[in-house]
Amino acid sequence: MTRFRYLSFLTDYGLEDGFVAACHGVGARIAPHATIIDVTHLIPPGDIRRGAIVLAQTVPYLPPAVHVAVVDPGVGTARRGVAVAAGDSVFIGPDNGLLSWAVTAAGGAARAFSLTNSKLWLSQVAATFHGRDIFMPVAAHLAADAELAAAGEEIDVGDLVTLSAPGRLVRDGTAEGEVLTVDRFGNVQLTITGADAAEIGVKAGGTVLVHCGRRQLMLPYREMFGAVASGELVAYPDSAGLVSIAVNGGNAAQRLGLPPGALVSIAAIPQTINP
Amino acid sequence: MTRFRYLSFLTDYGLEDGFVAACHGVGARIAPHATIIDVTHLIPPGDIRRGAIVLAQTVPYLPPAVHVAVVDPGVGTARRGVAVAAGDSVFIGPDNGLLSWAVTAAGGAARAFSLTNSKLWLSQVAATFHGRDIFMPVAAHLAADAELAAAGEEIDVGDLVTLSAPGRLVRDGTAEGEVLTVDRFGNVQLTITGADAAEIGVKAGGTVLVHCGRRQLMLPYREMFGAVASGELVAYPDSAGLVSIAVNGGNAAQRLGLPPGALVSIAAIPQTINP
Amino acid sequence: MTRFRYLSFLTDYGLEDGFVAACHGVGARIAPHATIIDVTHLIPPGDIRRGAIVLAQTVPYLPPAVHVAVVDPGVGTARRGVAVAAGDSVFIGPDNGLLSWAVTAAGGAARAFSLTNSKLWLSQVAATFHGRDIFMPVAAHLAADAELAAAGEEIDVGDLVTLSAPGRLVRDGTAEGEVLTVDRFGNVQLTITGADAAEIGVKAGGTVLVHCGRRQLMLPYREMFGAVASGELVAYPDSAGLVSIAVNGGNAAQRLGLPPGALVSIAAIPQTINP
Repeated sequence: MTRFRYLSFLTDYGLEDGFVAACHGVGARIAPHATIIDVTHLIPPGDIRRGAIVLAQTVPYLPPAVHVAVVDPGVGTARRGVAVAAGDSVFIGPDNGLLSWAVTAAGGAARAFSLTNSKLWLSQVAATFHGRDIFMPVAAHLAADAELAAAGEEIDVGDLVTLSAPGRLVRDGTAEGEVLTVDRFGNVQLTITGADAAEIGVKAGGTVLVHCGRRQLMLPYREMFGAVASGELVAYPDSAGLVSIAVNGGNAAQRLGLPPGALVSIAAIPQTINP
Repeated sequence: MTRFRYLSFLTDYGLEDGFVAACHGVGARIAPHATIIDVTHLIPPGDIRRGAIVLAQTVPYLPPAVHVAVVDPGVGTARRGVAVAAGDSVFIGPDNGLLSWAVTAAGGAARAFSLTNSKLWLSQVAATFHGRDIFMPVAAHLAADAELAAAGEEIDVGDLVTLSAPGRLVRDGTAEGEVLTVDRFGNVQLTITGADAAEIGVKAGGTVLVHCGRRQLMLPYREMFGAVASGELVAYPDSAGLVSIAVNGGNAAQRLGLPPGALVSIAAIPQTINP
Repeated sequence: MTRFRYLSFLTDYGLEDGFVAACHGVGARIAPHATIIDVTHLIPPGDIRRGAIVLAQTVPYLPPAVHVAVVDPGVGTARRGVAVAAGDSVFIGPDNGLLSWAVTAAGGAARAFSLTNSKLWLSQVAATFHGRDIFMPVAAHLAADAELAAAGEEIDVGDLVTLSAPGRLVRDGTAEGEVLTVDRFGNVQLTITGADAAEIGVKAGGTVLVHCGRRQLMLPYREMFGAVASGELVAYPDSAGLVSIAVNGGNAAQRLGLPPGALVSIAAIPQTINP
């Protein structure tokens, strides 16, 4: 019996070495029926938070799968590996918070297991490559024929390491948050949701007052960056449902000097509706 | 019934976010039988012309497929999405010219449809991510069981947006053109074809006179860059049938300062044959 | 009859052009049953040695396959293409040493053939793209139904081009070697093995004396980089069984200025055991 048709795979391994391929090979040997969907392997080395964001925003569009994620600066130390059942999927990786936002997005952890059953690992385990030697083989066994409970000792889902939720606060007609992440295009994604924006009266067609650092910007708020002229700044609810700031055809993160974590607040300017 | 075994996928989404994976996931959910071949996701953001070149030069080597291409600076605006039947394949993407050269290479557009049937889309469509929410789901439905005509309203193939053909002119023993593109190795691919070169008497073993800007170069014309010494400039008919300029073991685009669009002409120097 | 379920693919083609995809397409047309595992396509252009290292360290984790590797600065010149049977796999690529370390890792060459049978090639062969026109089609035919001997003329395995083994020497309580490669994380992998280190008394928990250039370092030798504080240098036996130098959470190659080929020696300092 095969249990999962798909594996997904996210790491900070990069693409210039053979690390990702070695894991693909291990997966193929154990679960030849499975297809591996690479989420990304370009998470900046050790950036757990960035890995958690990308995983959480991507998994909702993937089929039911064993999702393997490895951004693991503590590999080989006391941090444990875990398998977490959530929704119709299983998440496998280090218990350092990397999985936590995706697990929440999938409906929350139903059960969790510490990866203590070495029968599902490769016979030799390198202390610095658990992706190849533990996480992927366990995932492939779970995709092929092993029951989740075979992964190891069951643990309390409340004991899983969880990243603090991205900060945001709506009060007095203002939504305060921070830069959650910056994508390839330089679009600046805030922790503030499109729903937050609506709640404080920021509507497509209007103007939004943005505070970031000492800077104050009045930006058009539109449904898409393409609604403003090329080279112009714009705010909009993005494809993950979060307020983003972009430059149409340009790079807003560079233009504004806004890295992840920078504090940003927004407020509506109701009188400037442009229908 | 399944209609296509393969999807191909070209974008400017980059590899550091989860955008490509989200599209793979959407495709896998709708058409689990299909294999997705990634053409590239590193088209410079918004560079439609570069996307069109890579697509047109790659598709002839791919199996019959639904080819999805998304370089879409106008996403969410009035530009329409289209599905175009050409040869034994279907091309899907924004109607901004991106598909046009590949469609021509595949034998020209037989039929075209505007993607107006929202039943083939995801149930929620983000204004800025039609790759995930419209183009890939439509493609996957066409690969699985939907007829092409289900994609939407049929349109006149003559109304499709087409990029102007790369400029080249053969006259008076000279072939005039421009730099079409530069590849990873720094090889400078011209719009001038190997057949153009032959027509004006440029033959492997001979010497070619190259004008670019104010510069005039006499280069060996060979069958391959490896025919000259390491570090030497050479012109040759490349693997796409176009005249290219390379440095054996080096980067010709950097050496010569020749970006895409730079004007270049070539002529034969018949007396310098080295058989 | 299908002979191989998997192909693997390593090149220096990069990911920004359609070169890799064209090869995938050629493989899919000839061997639609086969899955292609990409090892990496980011070998620096023409860096045969780097390609050989990555291939040799990755192949042991891949399933039995036809392994296609193309780092081929001499494409189109007199260098021949070869198919080499080793272990349960076949290796295909230019006979320039690229395959040699992986073939050794797979148990050594059992038989070898020069790729002289043009019936297994594409009907048109570009002088500069043998990956697409010769290596991948031959590999796909071998994966599908062709016998290895159909690839071409058998050659003496002793005539295959072989890269010189990475230099290392153990004597007088010192292991001398060089930097074999540097990975994405900046970890500096030496040619010295973990077994060499053990032989000269370097043990996990101890301290190792490292000479590189005029510099002399006393580093903790641990089972993993995570055993030292963040930002600290450490030596450890890595996931390929070789001694590596890392900075926990940092980039050792940058910190120490150690590129591939740099001479390094190590020795034990027995009195500083920290159990």
